Amino acid sequence: MEIIRIPRIMREITKNLKIKSKSIGFVPTMGALHEGHLSLIRRAKDENDVTVVSIFVNPTQFAEGEDFEKYPRDTEGDKEKLQKIGIDYLFLPEATSLYPQGYSTYVNVEGLSDKLCGKFRPGHFQGVATIVCKLFNLIRPNRAYFGQKDYQQILIIQKMIEDLNFDIELIPCPTIRDEDGLAMSSRNAYLNEKERKAATVIYTTLREGERLLKEGLKPKEVKEKMIEILRSEPLVTEIQYAGVYDPLTLEEVSEKQAKYLLAIAVKINNTRLIDNFLVY
Amino acid sequence: MEIIRIPRIMREITKNLKIKSKSIGFVPTMGALHEGHLSLIRRAKDENDVTVVSIFVNPTQFAEGEDFEKYPRDTEGDKEKLQKIGIDYLFLPEATSLYPQGYSTYVNVEGLSDKLCGKFRPGHFQGVATIVCKLFNLIRPNRAYFGQKDYQQILIIQKMIEDLNFDIELIPCPTIRDEDGLAMSSRNAYLNEKERKAATVIYTTLREGERLLKEGLKPKEVKEKMIEILRSEPLVTEIQYAGVYDPLTLEEVSEKQAKYLLAIAVKINNTRLIDNFLVY
Repeated sequence: MEIIRIPRIMREITKNLKIKSKSIGFVPTMGALHEGHLSLIRRAKDENDVTVVSIFVNPTQFAEGEDFEKYPRDTEGDKEKLQKIGIDYLFLPEATSLYPQGYSTYVNVEGLSDKLCGKFRPGHFQGVATIVCKLFNLIRPNRAYFGQKDYQQILIIQKMIEDLNFDIELIPCPTIRDEDGLAMSSRNAYLNEKERKAATVIYTTLREGERLLKEGLKPKEVKEKMIEILRSEPLVTEIQYAGVYDPLTLEEVSEKQAKYLLAIAVKINNTRLIDNFLVY
Repeated sequence: MEIIRIPRIMREITKNLKIKSKSIGFVPTMGALHEGHLSLIRRAKDENDVTVVSIFVNPTQFAEGEDFEKYPRDTEGDKEKLQKIGIDYLFLPEATSLYPQGYSTYVNVEGLSDKLCGKFRPGHFQGVATIVCKLFNLIRPNRAYFGQKDYQQILIIQKMIEDLNFDIELIPCPTIRDEDGLAMSSRNAYLNEKERKAATVIYTTLREGERLLKEGLKPKEVKEKMIEILRSEPLVTEIQYAGVYDPLTLEEVSEKQAKYLLAIAVKINNTRLIDNFLVY
């Protein structure tokens, strides 16, 4: 595994790989790697000649007052995990090399970026679209792997790929969960024992929402039931959103349709967690 | 010369060229080709293995009420000129294939886009940055050629290339002028005989501004003199801007410095024309 820190060098390496017709699988991460990340990385390795993982805690996707400073970082532990899987390149840039002084270009996917998480994290998806656009130009992947836990992010990146004519296949990968159903997330590290236990209410709520939808309940009634369950957990200090959405537009759904997105964002004390189910 | 209309096919062709290590020179245009365009195209042909020219009147860079509808179009004449030079590919997409229904991703170069022309053409440079980003992903050029008549455009595209980590060299090319000094522009076709004669005042003003700057006049005095000359031409119906600017920030300059941009945007009756000089 080669560690690359300089964007220009990363770009030279991938240029030469493309000339040799090597396929490149890319997994962008913010580090603090867990089994969710590793499942993407293993799949990227299976499906491509060369695997590139990036670790970069991207400042532009954190809003004022969010957890950029204290976001979990474990570069040494991450390196060991990546070495063990046997990836080809770890791209580990400095913030100042990706956002030098005077940086001023941003990519915006209008519409989708203002929904769900976008309402509560102003600028978040502009930051995501911008860094992913930059990384795509540096890594030149054939395939890029993203976890379905961040469903809205996948939708936005897929739209950016189509709109900006990137020659890249986005591969959405299933959410990996702990045994009790909690979706893997680097932010789970913020939870103490009691909070960790309380956090399972997110999964329980999604399961129950899915069951009720399949039983024939109307989306509106399902949403009410979901909120009721979330409210029953005292450590849920804020429900940012919870309900039934259209999987393509992210608009709230009131009538029955073929496919639904059940999605939740809550705070367990001070820790913001999200999760979702796609229901057919 | 092969004519390509489908973005996906254009992208396949350039993918294969890159695998063969062919260098690609790209000249994006809105058609109605004049000697200015042709000088870029000849240079692209000289410096690269393969030359791609695009003709696309990009709707997103025209503001409400501008001349998108009546912008000069001469596809047959353009094809003849390109054939004669002997380019490899003419990319001639439909607007609906580059901006299908639901299109929603935009690239913004903040700061520079609000200055000079940006003040008078809201959204113009967002449209420019977005279409050029799309074309870069489709054409995958090693070098892209732009005319210095659109100085601000060059600055913004160069910034986008750096910020978004595109592996592309922007080649700025000198403004080509008629014998009386008027900068070549597709919009010159709008001018009747009297207006065409009046339009030379733009060049005269820039020449005089340059002379005065080199003589040691202060930028503020030079600006006043430039406006005075422009006002002396009765067919100049609006002066959008005219003066002495910093070539990197586009801010108005009040003190002496090493390098200046003299820039003008005026209307000759209803036709908006721009021009500039770089002064060392």
